[in-house]
Amino acid sequence: MPPLNPLVARTAAPPVMEARRWLAGVDMPSGRPLINLSQAAPVEPPPEALREAMAEMVRAEDDTHLYGPVLGLPALRSEIAWRWSAAYGGAIEPEDVAITAGCNQAFATAIMTLAEPGDAVLLPVPWYFNHKMWLDLCGIEAIPLPCDDAMLPDLAAAAALWTPRTRAVALVTPNNPTGAEYPPALIAGFAELAGSRGGALVLDETYRDFASSTERPHDLFTDAGWRDTLIHLYSFSKSFRLTGHRTGAMIASPDRLAEAEKILDTVTICPPQLGQKSALWGLRNLGDWLAAERLEILRRRDAAFAALSALPGWRVLGCGAYFAYVEHPFDIPSSELCPKLVRDQSLLMLPGTMFAPDGDERAKRQLRLAFANVGVEGLGVLGERLAGVGEKVG
Amino acid sequence: MPPLNPLVARTAAPPVMEARRWLAGVDMPSGRPLINLSQAAPVEPPPEALREAMAEMVRAEDDTHLYGPVLGLPALRSEIAWRWSAAYGGAIEPEDVAITAGCNQAFATAIMTLAEPGDAVLLPVPWYFNHKMWLDLCGIEAIPLPCDDAMLPDLAAAAALWTPRTRAVALVTPNNPTGAEYPPALIAGFAELAGSRGGALVLDETYRDFASSTERPHDLFTDAGWRDTLIHLYSFSKSFRLTGHRTGAMIASPDRLAEAEKILDTVTICPPQLGQKSALWGLRNLGDWLAAERLEILRRRDAAFAALSALPGWRVLGCGAYFAYVEHPFDIPSSELCPKLVRDQSLLMLPGTMFAPDGDERAKRQLRLAFANVGVEGLGVLGERLAGVGEKVG
Repeated sequence: MPPLNPLVARTAAPPVMEARRWLAGVDMPSGRPLINLSQAAPVEPPPEALREAMAEMVRAEDDTHLYGPVLGLPALRSEIAWRWSAAYGGAIEPEDVAITAGCNQAFATAIMTLAEPGDAVLLPVPWYFNHKMWLDLCGIEAIPLPCDDAMLPDLAAAAALWTPRTRAVALVTPNNPTGAEYPPALIAGFAELAGSRGGALVLDETYRDFASSTERPHDLFTDAGWRDTLIHLYSFSKSFRLTGHRTGAMIASPDRLAEAEKILDTVTICPPQLGQKSALWGLRNLGDWLAAERLEILRRRDAAFAALSALPGWRVLGCGAYFAYVEHPFDIPSSELCPKLVRDQSLLMLPGTMFAPDGDERAKRQLRLAFANVGVEGLGVLGERLAGVGEKVG
Repeated sequence: MPPLNPLVARTAAPPVMEARRWLAGVDMPSGRPLINLSQAAPVEPPPEALREAMAEMVRAEDDTHLYGPVLGLPALRSEIAWRWSAAYGGAIEPEDVAITAGCNQAFATAIMTLAEPGDAVLLPVPWYFNHKMWLDLCGIEAIPLPCDDAMLPDLAAAAALWTPRTRAVALVTPNNPTGAEYPPALIAGFAELAGSRGGALVLDETYRDFASSTERPHDLFTDAGWRDTLIHLYSFSKSFRLTGHRTGAMIASPDRLAEAEKILDTVTICPPQLGQKSALWGLRNLGDWLAAERLEILRRRDAAFAALSALPGWRVLGCGAYFAYVEHPFDIPSSELCPKLVRDQSLLMLPGTMFAPDGDERAKRQLRLAFANVGVEGLGVLGERLAGVGEKVG
């Protein structure tokens, strides 16, 4: 197949597809249905009231079907600006907000404005694999940044690893894959580091609405100079269950958004309109619903933590948002353990090796469980099944 | 704003925004409303039957709201494969088809699989500005390829301009901005050139459904070896008026689509689901409707041609699909003429300079008129207004 961009050829294939292949040809026993802990996404549609509103947008509002502004609908940008200003205690203007076709596009666009091929970006390990893939595709070096035992990225290590080619550090909090919530002081430390080196902090808060606290997750927006350093990313996929509509957001200085506009215009022209209108409707009408969703996710988090921390020899490294990140006690690498768990226990989860550089030894002991789609009862069953693994693997 | 990727900084801003600024502060006389000839997109929503079907998809089909496969819905990929096979007289398999979040994303993805920074791609001049912008953003050299007086790209020049770093030639037919329809033999010549140099032909057929003939536009798919050279791009934005839903397609070898999958997963995860389902519904139900749309566009084309070719001193260089491309007779550059036409004649069109390299002398005499949204009567008015320009400008 000539010609082929070697940067693309060297980029790993999406790992979720590999996980799906483990399911192929496996017959689950009728008494032991699959528990799917691989998906970091809702599996239910949006609430009925939103679906009805969407049906009306499609039927009666012509602009749902037409191109809109490259940086998104003004009404949605304004709504985000004032709500985020209130939530974060800062001053965010509509001109600081861009809407994207999902949060992955927000990350890809933010990185493209920051770094050219040959530059570098710091990514805590374990990382969100799509972040690593985008850096690889762009020829930007991903510098692995170690995390401590609480899955918090090491600020001193970041300072030491920062090179003259480093343009940014990208953090995800609450974290995918670990579920760790980064303390405000740690986030502030990274913002300060980035600022002092003339770089940026890219802060992906996709899972913000499912944090353990309703306090604001950091104070960065209270600093009037936030635009010099911070690029904040958000997704409407999880909060209002709009994954199929591709709606995310990027908050940054208007100067940077003018650069982002070139990229967004060229790649997608405008974000999908129905997702934008739905996000706006959700912000205005689904506050209570989302609060209840959060409480249910927190119940599941507690159930997941209880089940996993009771397992002898296992360690829970992180547990929050949609995810638990655990260390298993077996002498086989997680990349082999996971397909085995599909066959032996009807459990689908992702190995730590999918979130780490090749050869990372710790990742071979680690697993990500996305528990958000599994009810409290199912998480009890999860514990029972994992307790039974030892004899067969050990 | 440190840091900033210099490739992005050097990329031109989207020209459509500049054109929109010309409108700001201009009061159109009540007897002379604006005729907007700048937009290469439908301004009407999809037909009611499709809108009703979409409302039902949103209300009752859960998967409309959830992630789907990275490369698109299998049913849509299959539908495209068999319909395109019939239309082009070739063998296209579902595995050769990927769905994208609009045709711009298809182009961006195709180019990224082909070329790395420092490589080159041939683009006929005038070019579609988003194509040029994406090459600039990626650090890929756009080699300007001259067109003849019929706005057909020069195959011999392409052979001479092809360097060891050239990875592809990208053609748009029917063309944006010129409306020119490339003859099958010319398209075949470019495929042969690309193949003989180990490169690719990227063929964007976004406006295919509005061509002057219903014969197949080229024979490339009849060659069983098409996958070695050809990447075909398509958009559902124009045919079914789905611009706001972002749905395009890319047809290429399964090997290349496996590479494209890395990019698409990382940028948008999946194409918007409602657009995909709507495109599928359109393919199955809107054949007659689209045929009538085409006839109406052809009537407008004839009216545009009649009006423009009657103007003394003007030359119609191309006229087809949504566009007429003309040479004006005045001694001011098109970049100054266009804002003047807004003020003096309430006509908004784009200057050739937006579709050409800086300093291109021919482009200063050229204008693009997107006539598809203007009725036959309005195109008569267009001719009258342009006939009155001479005294004021000449």
